[in-house]
Amino acid sequence: MTRIVMKFGGTSVANLDRIRAAAAFVRREVDAGHSVAVAVSAMAGETNRLIGLCDEAGPPAPALDARFVEQDAVVSSGEQVTSGLLALVMQQLGYRARSWQGWQIPLKTDERHGSARIADLDSTALGEAIDSGEIAVVAGFQGVAPDGRIATFGRGGTDTSAAALAAALKAERCDIYTDVDGVYTTDPRLTKQARRIDKISYEEMLEMASVGAKVLQTRSVELAMAWKVPLRVLSSFDPPDAPGPGTLICDEDDIVEQNIVTAVTPDFNEATVTVLAVPDEPGRAAAIFTRLADIGVNIDMIVQSASREPGFANISFTTKEDDLDRAVEALNAVKDKIGYNALQSDRNVAKISVIGLGMKSHAGVASTMFQTLADKGINIQNIFTSEIKISVLINSDAAEYAVRALHEAYGLDKAR
Amino acid sequence: MTRIVMKFGGTSVANLDRIRAAAAFVRREVDAGHSVAVAVSAMAGETNRLIGLCDEAGPPAPALDARFVEQDAVVSSGEQVTSGLLALVMQQLGYRARSWQGWQIPLKTDERHGSARIADLDSTALGEAIDSGEIAVVAGFQGVAPDGRIATFGRGGTDTSAAALAAALKAERCDIYTDVDGVYTTDPRLTKQARRIDKISYEEMLEMASVGAKVLQTRSVELAMAWKVPLRVLSSFDPPDAPGPGTLICDEDDIVEQNIVTAVTPDFNEATVTVLAVPDEPGRAAAIFTRLADIGVNIDMIVQSASREPGFANISFTTKEDDLDRAVEALNAVKDKIGYNALQSDRNVAKISVIGLGMKSHAGVASTMFQTLADKGINIQNIFTSEIKISVLINSDAAEYAVRALHEAYGLDKAR
Repeated sequence: MTRIVMKFGGTSVANLDRIRAAAAFVRREVDAGHSVAVAVSAMAGETNRLIGLCDEAGPPAPALDARFVEQDAVVSSGEQVTSGLLALVMQQLGYRARSWQGWQIPLKTDERHGSARIADLDSTALGEAIDSGEIAVVAGFQGVAPDGRIATFGRGGTDTSAAALAAALKAERCDIYTDVDGVYTTDPRLTKQARRIDKISYEEMLEMASVGAKVLQTRSVELAMAWKVPLRVLSSFDPPDAPGPGTLICDEDDIVEQNIVTAVTPDFNEATVTVLAVPDEPGRAAAIFTRLADIGVNIDMIVQSASREPGFANISFTTKEDDLDRAVEALNAVKDKIGYNALQSDRNVAKISVIGLGMKSHAGVASTMFQTLADKGINIQNIFTSEIKISVLINSDAAEYAVRALHEAYGLDKAR
Repeated sequence: MTRIVMKFGGTSVANLDRIRAAAAFVRREVDAGHSVAVAVSAMAGETNRLIGLCDEAGPPAPALDARFVEQDAVVSSGEQVTSGLLALVMQQLGYRARSWQGWQIPLKTDERHGSARIADLDSTALGEAIDSGEIAVVAGFQGVAPDGRIATFGRGGTDTSAAALAAALKAERCDIYTDVDGVYTTDPRLTKQARRIDKISYEEMLEMASVGAKVLQTRSVELAMAWKVPLRVLSSFDPPDAPGPGTLICDEDDIVEQNIVTAVTPDFNEATVTVLAVPDEPGRAAAIFTRLADIGVNIDMIVQSASREPGFANISFTTKEDDLDRAVEALNAVKDKIGYNALQSDRNVAKISVIGLGMKSHAGVASTMFQTLADKGINIQNIFTSEIKISVLINSDAAEYAVRALHEAYGLDKAR
């Protein structure tokens, strides 16, 4: 008997009608003779509502760990509710089903409440249950920390739950049901030429997730890659008796025809900060970034250039737009200590990334990108590359235009 | 260091403002040097919302135990949320505080999901925590069943949690904060003459709870009585710096001046059923009440009288108005088997009870009741007595009038 893990996100369990639709997909797999574990998110909006209550109870205080422990107790209740409801619906359809909370499995995490990582997942009881024909509905996004209390994984954490369950259960595959019918060559809201990708490698998907494609949480792809569990992204809004093929995320060896470029991914949640005239002495850059790390601001690209004044340098970095105000505030507070002259910040930027396994072996991908943008008169502010990704920072007003031009330039417009 | 248990019901934690008001009462006890454990209900309306979701997922099916297990997983999340929020608010005020779920204590229950009873409460860890100065905020209404899953106690179950915690922790007292400022001599909505009772015995409070006074869950009073924990009912709507005295529920030996009658308690949630012309043979009455017990219909008073036809009897009983339709339906289904002639039912009845420890030693309480009602022209349909209670069933249209007359007749109108 093969084991299958299925995951339903917030919009796929937003109300009882959606939960019943999800149940129809579960039923299909069970009727096909599979042992099934299902990981579920909170009903759409619930997590935000619960975080809102916590914020009202006491504003966020990074130093106060006890706060995150309580927030986890509150927020994890969202998934607890959905797990019970889906189990009830499956029972109503005549199936044996039960909900599993993280602490019941047990799915053990580390001690970092609010952004915990999985430490150990003992799937013995869960595996026995599903092999006996009982459907396991697992509350996603959560486990139990070493202090015996509930810990959550951070946003999108149910993907991680699903991938970890699939790995522990040695599942044949992990199906991620969501509100889109697969992973696209670019954001379909930006161009009608965007096409669903049939197969994509873990590495490419990781790069896409890291630059802001919101289909999957990065950690879930890492887990699937490490344990070689094929992930499939598909829509819970398709008819259950005729679901679309979705996108398979798998090992690069399982992809026969590799694209040079697989996707063009825009990220509008970017902002830049330039610290002007920092004394060019050892330790000044470290002081800036240590300060930002301390308050949990994530830094993406960093560029240091000489200032017009000799003995001084300008340091630019990009961060998430959401983190900008905190970053600026933190740097203002240490202005005298670091000894810089002024701060500049800009929200009006976007990061455009082209991603593709084929870059490893094909030259000219970068030059095509730069030439295409130059031809369209788009100025590049920053460039950042990895083995299978090239990212540029440009003015966000030009982002949509740039995406369409690059999508066409790499031949992604053409149906394959 | 004395230990105190406090309990806040749904209206006392209905939103963040109310939770902050509750926190002010908790703070007062902690600042007074007490070790404090707090049991909290779900925010007002949450339990109903969650049960509504369960009902939508799959209609109630008494035989289907698995349903109640899942409903418990869903519904218990309401208290989980409140426990985390109150802990957050206490932290914000500068106190050490943490939430405790039933399974974390652990508070063990029996296997009856949805209406579980406490099997064992190991308060070692909880006691150590509160004696160290940490405030324990316990999610009420729930524990962990022998199957390792969450079980709830049924409506009002947080009172039971609080009383059990107080017993296990050997607390000096258990303060029940609610939306009224104490237990009254009768329902204040029926007469302005209703007065708050300063002290009442466990036995009287039990009788009041059993006939529908909704201030406390019966089980919590039983627990407090068994473990001799004084319960105090007081209002969370009073100013925290000047709370009212409330009502103390304690051992009868601690009440110096006992009243002959302490309270007049009306119950409008009553209905009567009369089964006409049941063959007067052994086993017929048993068949009726076994059938009703099987479907969980609670029966209060039963009267059997001779029918006009020889060899037949009429059997009348009262039940809760909410259960009437199910009772009638169940009896209709076995009409041929039981062999009765017809069913009559009446929702238009109320039960009026007079309760008082002094009845044990004073004669004339019953005759005062009957005479008072007779003087007012109110017909008594049924009479039921216990050692410290006399209940009568009357037409509900006359109930308000009867309550006022009895309240005056027993001298409860006079301030003491």
